[in-house]
Amino acid sequence: MISNAQQKLIQSLTQKKYRKKNKLFLAEGVKIVNEILFSAYKIHSIFGVADWLADNSGKLHNTHIQEIVEVDEKELKKISNLRTANKVLAVVHMPEQDINLNSNLIIMLDSIRDPGNMGTIIRIADWYGIDTIICSEDCADIYNPKVIQASMGSFLRIQHAYENLQEILSSNSDRNSYGAFLEGESVHTCNFQKPAFLLIGNESSGIDDNLLPFVKQKISIPKFGEAESLNASVATAIILDNMRRKMKVES
Amino acid sequence: MISNAQQKLIQSLTQKKYRKKNKLFLAEGVKIVNEILFSAYKIHSIFGVADWLADNSGKLHNTHIQEIVEVDEKELKKISNLRTANKVLAVVHMPEQDINLNSNLIIMLDSIRDPGNMGTIIRIADWYGIDTIICSEDCADIYNPKVIQASMGSFLRIQHAYENLQEILSSNSDRNSYGAFLEGESVHTCNFQKPAFLLIGNESSGIDDNLLPFVKQKISIPKFGEAESLNASVATAIILDNMRRKMKVES
Repeated sequence: MISNAQQKLIQSLTQKKYRKKNKLFLAEGVKIVNEILFSAYKIHSIFGVADWLADNSGKLHNTHIQEIVEVDEKELKKISNLRTANKVLAVVHMPEQDINLNSNLIIMLDSIRDPGNMGTIIRIADWYGIDTIICSEDCADIYNPKVIQASMGSFLRIQHAYENLQEILSSNSDRNSYGAFLEGESVHTCNFQKPAFLLIGNESSGIDDNLLPFVKQKISIPKFGEAESLNASVATAIILDNMRRKMKVES
Repeated sequence: MISNAQQKLIQSLTQKKYRKKNKLFLAEGVKIVNEILFSAYKIHSIFGVADWLADNSGKLHNTHIQEIVEVDEKELKKISNLRTANKVLAVVHMPEQDINLNSNLIIMLDSIRDPGNMGTIIRIADWYGIDTIICSEDCADIYNPKVIQASMGSFLRIQHAYENLQEILSSNSDRNSYGAFLEGESVHTCNFQKPAFLLIGNESSGIDDNLLPFVKQKISIPKFGEAESLNASVATAIILDNMRRKMKVES
């Protein structure tokens, strides 16, 4: 049975300021919690239904877990942020991340505010073997429950940081930087060179003007029809597919 | 001011059975309604705030519009399906569609149930100049307000039909058919031939077993990292980008 204090903590973690203060975030559902149990992430507490706890008792012998609480479906529904609660909710410690810029291909996100888009981009990055994402400070919080769920566990394999993109670009000017625009060199023919940043902008407003001087190559996705634009996650996927096809590099 | 009967009609059109019965659907927001006004679609009624109606009075001289109703923000919010209502809501007549299978590249969707995914796929199809989508009968309804909004107006340029995919595939066996799978020939190297169907399956369950005998070529998106899968709309985008790059055909 869940206590009032536990319920209050979980509720507070839907808000960024309390996630930051407590250095904790929420993750839900059988698949994601299972992946976390097998990762280097440390779990603070687990709220699971009886059959899930029984099935996973072996894995739960993790001395880092402070509390393992059995809940019924009704209690789980109350604390869940999913449309359909899925057996287990975990409160997870945010890892200390020392980000490095050694990877051959690094994604930079400028003002991606929609959590669903952000989570989908993390999943796409993971598919294409990208391990580093640098976000502008106004991007959606990666520990927002909607980002975590949309990433389908891929957040576990991506290091990230919130930074001033202008500073990062100017202090790493030896790297190539490709920016996604509606007009630019076609990703089908561009001769991508590593190491590189791939800069993706906000869908409505594009890449911020103050970053333009640092974009060495504008690239674009060839259009064959009439749609005005593609959403940011779809554009990221198409560009990464072309980069990987042409670069054939390890990240 | 909006009448009770009008409000009741709009409310009913959030449900498929009433859309089908009345042959009407909803579209909202400045951009989409503007595109509809310039399309061959016929508008049944329009509910707009005063400044939108004033700005668009020229365009509204369309004898097909039965009712043009001024609403205030509060009334609009009440009938809107958007998180933030956007000046205008239109009730639109469903067009009679005589679908033909002449296009060089036709998308087939098997059990794509999520309206957001469906709308995004329509927008991607429009970007890549695809004008025909055949949906299995259990796909999301294209006239669902969430599909219409996610398509960003691209639904206006796509003809669609809900059909038994097995029948369509077997009676069009002279066409090539490519199916998206986790394992198959890489889309980077596949030698795509027109005319073709591109078959996209449900994200969790994939392409239905009963369609497998009709898939002439299994194709897959090369994976460089760890994510288990990509969502259906992202996969569609990457495959179409590769098909267009290699086929360079008009649809």
